[in-house]
Amino acid sequence: MSIHGSVVPCEIKDLSLAEAGKRRIEWMLQSMPVLASIRKQFIKTQAFSGVRIAARLPVTAAAANLVITLRDSGAKIRVWGSDAHTTEDDVAASLVKDYQVPVFATSVGHDRGELPPLVLADVLAQAPQLLVDHTGELAATAAVAQTTIQSAIVATREGARRLRTLAGDRPLGFPVVASHRSLTRRVFYSRIGIGQSTLDAVSRSMNILIAGLNVVVIGFGKAGRGIAARAKGLGAVVMVTEIDPIRAAEAAMEGYRVLSMTEAAGIGGVFLATSSSRNVIGREHYDKLRNGAILANAGHSDVELDMGTLAQIAGSRKQIRSEVEEWVMRDGRRIYLLAGGRSIRQAMDEALPASVLDLTFANRALSAEYLVKSHESLPAEVYGVPLEIDQQVARLKLEAMGIKIDRLTVEQEQYLASLSE
Amino acid sequence: MSIHGSVVPCEIKDLSLAEAGKRRIEWMLQSMPVLASIRKQFIKTQAFSGVRIAARLPVTAAAANLVITLRDSGAKIRVWGSDAHTTEDDVAASLVKDYQVPVFATSVGHDRGELPPLVLADVLAQAPQLLVDHTGELAATAAVAQTTIQSAIVATREGARRLRTLAGDRPLGFPVVASHRSLTRRVFYSRIGIGQSTLDAVSRSMNILIAGLNVVVIGFGKAGRGIAARAKGLGAVVMVTEIDPIRAAEAAMEGYRVLSMTEAAGIGGVFLATSSSRNVIGREHYDKLRNGAILANAGHSDVELDMGTLAQIAGSRKQIRSEVEEWVMRDGRRIYLLAGGRSIRQAMDEALPASVLDLTFANRALSAEYLVKSHESLPAEVYGVPLEIDQQVARLKLEAMGIKIDRLTVEQEQYLASLSE
Amino acid sequence: MSIHGSVVPCEIKDLSLAEAGKRRIEWMLQSMPVLASIRKQFIKTQAFSGVRIAARLPVTAAAANLVITLRDSGAKIRVWGSDAHTTEDDVAASLVKDYQVPVFATSVGHDRGELPPLVLADVLAQAPQLLVDHTGELAATAAVAQTTIQSAIVATREGARRLRTLAGDRPLGFPVVASHRSLTRRVFYSRIGIGQSTLDAVSRSMNILIAGLNVVVIGFGKAGRGIAARAKGLGAVVMVTEIDPIRAAEAAMEGYRVLSMTEAAGIGGVFLATSSSRNVIGREHYDKLRNGAILANAGHSDVELDMGTLAQIAGSRKQIRSEVEEWVMRDGRRIYLLAGGRSIRQAMDEALPASVLDLTFANRALSAEYLVKSHESLPAEVYGVPLEIDQQVARLKLEAMGIKIDRLTVEQEQYLASLSE
Amino acid sequence: MSIHGSVVPCEIKDLSLAEAGKRRIEWMLQSMPVLASIRKQFIKTQAFSGVRIAARLPVTAAAANLVITLRDSGAKIRVWGSDAHTTEDDVAASLVKDYQVPVFATSVGHDRGELPPLVLADVLAQAPQLLVDHTGELAATAAVAQTTIQSAIVATREGARRLRTLAGDRPLGFPVVASHRSLTRRVFYSRIGIGQSTLDAVSRSMNILIAGLNVVVIGFGKAGRGIAARAKGLGAVVMVTEIDPIRAAEAAMEGYRVLSMTEAAGIGGVFLATSSSRNVIGREHYDKLRNGAILANAGHSDVELDMGTLAQIAGSRKQIRSEVEEWVMRDGRRIYLLAGGRSIRQAMDEALPASVLDLTFANRALSAEYLVKSHESLPAEVYGVPLEIDQQVARLKLEAMGIKIDRLTVEQEQYLASLSE
Repeated sequence: MSIHGSVVPCEIKDLSLAEAGKRRIEWMLQSMPVLASIRKQFIKTQAFSGVRIAARLPVTAAAANLVITLRDSGAKIRVWGSDAHTTEDDVAASLVKDYQVPVFATSVGHDRGELPPLVLADVLAQAPQLLVDHTGELAATAAVAQTTIQSAIVATREGARRLRTLAGDRPLGFPVVASHRSLTRRVFYSRIGIGQSTLDAVSRSMNILIAGLNVVVIGFGKAGRGIAARAKGLGAVVMVTEIDPIRAAEAAMEGYRVLSMTEAAGIGGVFLATSSSRNVIGREHYDKLRNGAILANAGHSDVELDMGTLAQIAGSRKQIRSEVEEWVMRDGRRIYLLAGGRSIRQAMDEALPASVLDLTFANRALSAEYLVKSHESLPAEVYGVPLEIDQQVARLKLEAMGIKIDRLTVEQEQYLASLSE
Repeated sequence: MSIHGSVVPCEIKDLSLAEAGKRRIEWMLQSMPVLASIRKQFIKTQAFSGVRIAARLPVTAAAANLVITLRDSGAKIRVWGSDAHTTEDDVAASLVKDYQVPVFATSVGHDRGELPPLVLADVLAQAPQLLVDHTGELAATAAVAQTTIQSAIVATREGARRLRTLAGDRPLGFPVVASHRSLTRRVFYSRIGIGQSTLDAVSRSMNILIAGLNVVVIGFGKAGRGIAARAKGLGAVVMVTEIDPIRAAEAAMEGYRVLSMTEAAGIGGVFLATSSSRNVIGREHYDKLRNGAILANAGHSDVELDMGTLAQIAGSRKQIRSEVEEWVMRDGRRIYLLAGGRSIRQAMDEALPASVLDLTFANRALSAEYLVKSHESLPAEVYGVPLEIDQQVARLKLEAMGIKIDRLTVEQEQYLASLSE
Repeated sequence: MSIHGSVVPCEIKDLSLAEAGKRRIEWMLQSMPVLASIRKQFIKTQAFSGVRIAARLPVTAAAANLVITLRDSGAKIRVWGSDAHTTEDDVAASLVKDYQVPVFATSVGHDRGELPPLVLADVLAQAPQLLVDHTGELAATAAVAQTTIQSAIVATREGARRLRTLAGDRPLGFPVVASHRSLTRRVFYSRIGIGQSTLDAVSRSMNILIAGLNVVVIGFGKAGRGIAARAKGLGAVVMVTEIDPIRAAEAAMEGYRVLSMTEAAGIGGVFLATSSSRNVIGREHYDKLRNGAILANAGHSDVELDMGTLAQIAGSRKQIRSEVEEWVMRDGRRIYLLAGGRSIRQAMDEALPASVLDLTFANRALSAEYLVKSHESLPAEVYGVPLEIDQQVARLKLEAMGIKIDRLTVEQEQYLASLSE
Repeated sequence: MSIHGSVVPCEIKDLSLAEAGKRRIEWMLQSMPVLASIRKQFIKTQAFSGVRIAARLPVTAAAANLVITLRDSGAKIRVWGSDAHTTEDDVAASLVKDYQVPVFATSVGHDRGELPPLVLADVLAQAPQLLVDHTGELAATAAVAQTTIQSAIVATREGARRLRTLAGDRPLGFPVVASHRSLTRRVFYSRIGIGQSTLDAVSRSMNILIAGLNVVVIGFGKAGRGIAARAKGLGAVVMVTEIDPIRAAEAAMEGYRVLSMTEAAGIGGVFLATSSSRNVIGREHYDKLRNGAILANAGHSDVELDMGTLAQIAGSRKQIRSEVEEWVMRDGRRIYLLAGGRSIRQAMDEALPASVLDLTFANRALSAEYLVKSHESLPAEVYGVPLEIDQQVARLKLEAMGIKIDRLTVEQEQYLASLSE
């Protein structure tokens, strides 16, 4: 496709959507002060001067700002959509037209999570040095081949797991930062972000008041804690189920009613599953649910609810809103199921508050710089985000919030050093 | 219009929308267990047998369930839309087609808040005995004329004020229940409902995380308290401004940072005005706002923000989302304004959680029954919802929540009676 | 008794305790910034110049500061202890020795709540113009006699009730301010103060962690709300029982588990009765209590628990700490009873945080000034604390907290005036 | 000393105090259901049959229940007081008289933290196999000598540090469990227990209302979080200072106002230092403190406050209550200092809620059993409490609270195992 006289290779839906896309990208940047600050710094240092980057990720307004940041800092970047479902066609159009970034992504076509062989070939043809690979499939494939790739960033937990498994067998060809392993992410995304977004998802899809609702949080890990705190903050009566006795005791000490799922099943108004386990809502619970109970999988896999059993024992189901199914049990009880029992996180992730996305992409931007600078000295393994980067992100976030904190005095540094001896 | 062989007079947009409307009306009823319970009782007693009712109200799925309840209990009811903006055409269609209720309402046409003379004539032509009048204009006009009307329910604060002012001059022709004056409404709508909905409105329109945000709540009345509690529950740093020293002290005792608007202006990330006063955000505050500050009028009038001054001193503005304007000040600061500075309640009211609407319409249903039964013995004045009705609504709500409470023993009744002697 | 050459009439335990008393009075004043500020003003204006005041109240360090304030503002004040139990002998000694105030109060002797005839005679002999009468007995007696008294302040609810009952029959001889009827008191004492103090009383007397505890709050009035909020804030699982459906619904909307006492009885770890009713914990509840359950009457009367029945059905009891009895039921369950089932408020009142006492006595100081100035124009009835005084107290409290609030602009005053027309 | 005909060696203050001691030991056991449950089990299995145990610890009612548990399970146990300050003479007497345990501890005499040589000789003369050593001094001394000791439990952080330092140089002679390194302790003691106790200490010593108070929490580690949560729950306006940007951001996300100490110094009403650092309140802060500010060291070392500088710059000080000093600055500001600036934890520890002590001693009881069973197979290093023991403690705690939780199904176990591969 020819833009402003030069040719930008691309495969997008409709270039005329660029204007809307540009407006959304710019509006999003307003809400990403941490990335904006990093971007300013990177442009000054041309941190990615001449670096070839292949990015495979959801083409969203937030991600576009990472792409633009890398490009404006000197990178030669190309973008592949990681799945059709998440591609925002207007953003893709603007990246091509307004920023001259080659983009291969449309909202129709290849399915989520599968890596088409043609994409792999295209990516390798670019001879990239750095991969920014959402799902880890590119990196995993490249890791076992002879390529130009010097390092990679992988975003999802599954991607990281895949690469760690590979690395268990033999060395990866290059170091990989698993960007989901990050201290700031644990706070901002896994607890606070998911906390607000899950309750939002419930109240919006069902149009209900959270106050006074019996909310059952299944699992008291980071997500469970975040959700429980928000539900309590919105006035719900919050109950927690756990299989780990220490976490269960902790939940009780924080004022939640802790009980078994067997008991909770007959009490809850909303069930939010975050157990990381399988079939935590199953046959014996379905039988006890109150009329009108709402079920949602707020975990990161799709197996929290035993959907097979539900389908067997329910009388009928119908879609009543875009993400809501009404299941009628044989005894007449109605049960409302969000997102068909699959994890509601995918939908939520796309609607995450901008300040959460800000930190997510700030982490990746700094990780990219780190890998470009340090890849030669790093063993070919999978790393979490380095502590210094998390601290830097937190520092920039505080700055964006207008918060000043203290620094250690020399005397204090010495004292603390003496303690850890 | 001829439906099933009989003729139902109507003036609606499109009868073919009825199916969608019916689905939404029924789904809404699922979420209105209190009204559903009253409805069941009314049908049994045929509480409105033969009573002619003229209803002028926003034609929404929730209101439709009140209309259907009255109809199924024997009333001869006709419905006029109170303004085009709030009319849901599919609901109007279903009322006509599926429930044979004459409806005169479309989403295009006459403006909010004005009573067209033709509507008045039409209403009176029906010779109604009971008015269910959202804005009080019908009632106010009828009150000074010789009509068949025996009693009325008025929903808005302004409507009630208009009628009280009339009644100050001379007797109204009939008793009026001002349904906004209700204890359950104070809790469920003014505090809890507005609390959740206001924060929802902010987080949705701006796509932001409430946690960590500096939220300035202007005014610590019922709405202010509800909003402050929810903001705190969502992790915000909440500040309160008040002009009443007792309320200010109370806010401080509840852990809010209390300060003057002059000081808050330079700190806040979001300002939510609920003062019931005028120009509480004005020139001196605009000058101090931080870049990115968000302003919203969460009160019940449209005058909380001094919009005239803002228009004078700002450099430019543009609409960036449906309810969000970006104003750029001459020194470059950007300010985000929700709903153009008008009260965001109107938009919120339409999106209120169903359980809030449930109590609202349950109150009106019971008030209607009360007026039909008692209008002859009541002086022609404006009343709040009788305590017994509020208690009955609360009792049915508790029942719907599966909550059982105690009743006084005879001994306790005697004891309490002795105390109040 | 001869002090510094002059004779100060008194009847106290031991003048040599004065030094300790003085230290405590001064330390208390440090924590009473509102009263201190009023005192400074009164001294300047000599607000009570020559006024004869008879004060009958608990002789505590806090009360002493009111007495001294009145004295230093010109009053001729004498003090009688309202009961032996509350008299602090060191304070009494210091009032006599260091402040030359005649005091008649010792920690041994006459019982709480009874007015000895000799005291009455003594008081009248002083020919007082203003009574500051804690329990209202002096005022009630004086009201029916021909005395010099021009006005009175009464502190307790029972005292006010007694005077209102009198006033129902015939005019009192003078106007009375019932100082417990005060907006600031409702917030600072009835909700916030009792909230903290009740939980303190439980955790101190039983040496327990509130976190994780099942706390049952009986009654959701002001005290119940304050206690429930603090229990939640300390990490308890809070349950509420109510007989009023509107309050019950409100409690549910605030995230408390609402249930009947019948159900709560078998779940609770601590029961805090604030119902204002009688026997709210009775036979059927005792039978269900869990081993180790703690019972406390946190109301204002002594009849919340059915102690007669408990004594009948329990196997044995023993005192295990100063305010804790262990009752062993016939089936072996142990129940812990605080303050023998009587209201724990009396004990708490003496230990109330100084900032609560500050407002209490500030209210009385301003009410005293108001009565001295206005008694001639006031009908001889029982009044609550005038709004202006409550506002003034709140204003001074905010000042002491370093909080500045806004004042209405002229434009806003006009707008608000127009609304209320 | 001859008791019931047999001779129990001892060195205690007064045997006649035994009755009071016994009552307190038994009352404490009522509040220690977890230890009570372990005790029952241990007695059945005679878990310590014939094991010689030397215990050096604070002789308190709670500790006595551990001692008795070990004795009743077959151990030959002797007890040395770890310092005079913490010894409860009545408990010591009862251990000797009622339980025939040799005790060497009085409330007068040797200072805290120093190990008298005679004690060491006495201990070794017993030829103990297991040490239960509060401060680690016995263990550290024994570790470098040839003794009969097979294993040890050390309770304090300092003790564990001393032993780890030793172990860095050469092998300890035996395995050591550092009982403060425990997951349940982190929740129940470091966060929840310290949270409540610190606020208690402040409100009791100063007799103040926490609501409305500006509370500055210095450090957002476990103790800081616990304290901040409780202060918020009690209605304070809570501020946090941190030097770690990630923790600072986390505090901000939880709704606390985060700021620098420089700024906080001029705002706070109470300062609670938990930084684990040194001189976090120093010269520049003292200069800014508001009149009436309260300072407390809530950390675990005694160096949080720069006391030397305070002594230099202050005008005068006086003790005004047992744990409160009033310091008057040269410009007249008064500052209140708790516990002379030393950690208030020692005082608090003795007053910790029984349920916290319950878990503490339950952990030690199970650790003791674990060491007796496994010492031969364990390397001679310093361990934290094994996870299984923490889980067991949590499980028993839940049981004591009447809470039932779920267990994994076989299918779930397999699923989770597959994930962690």
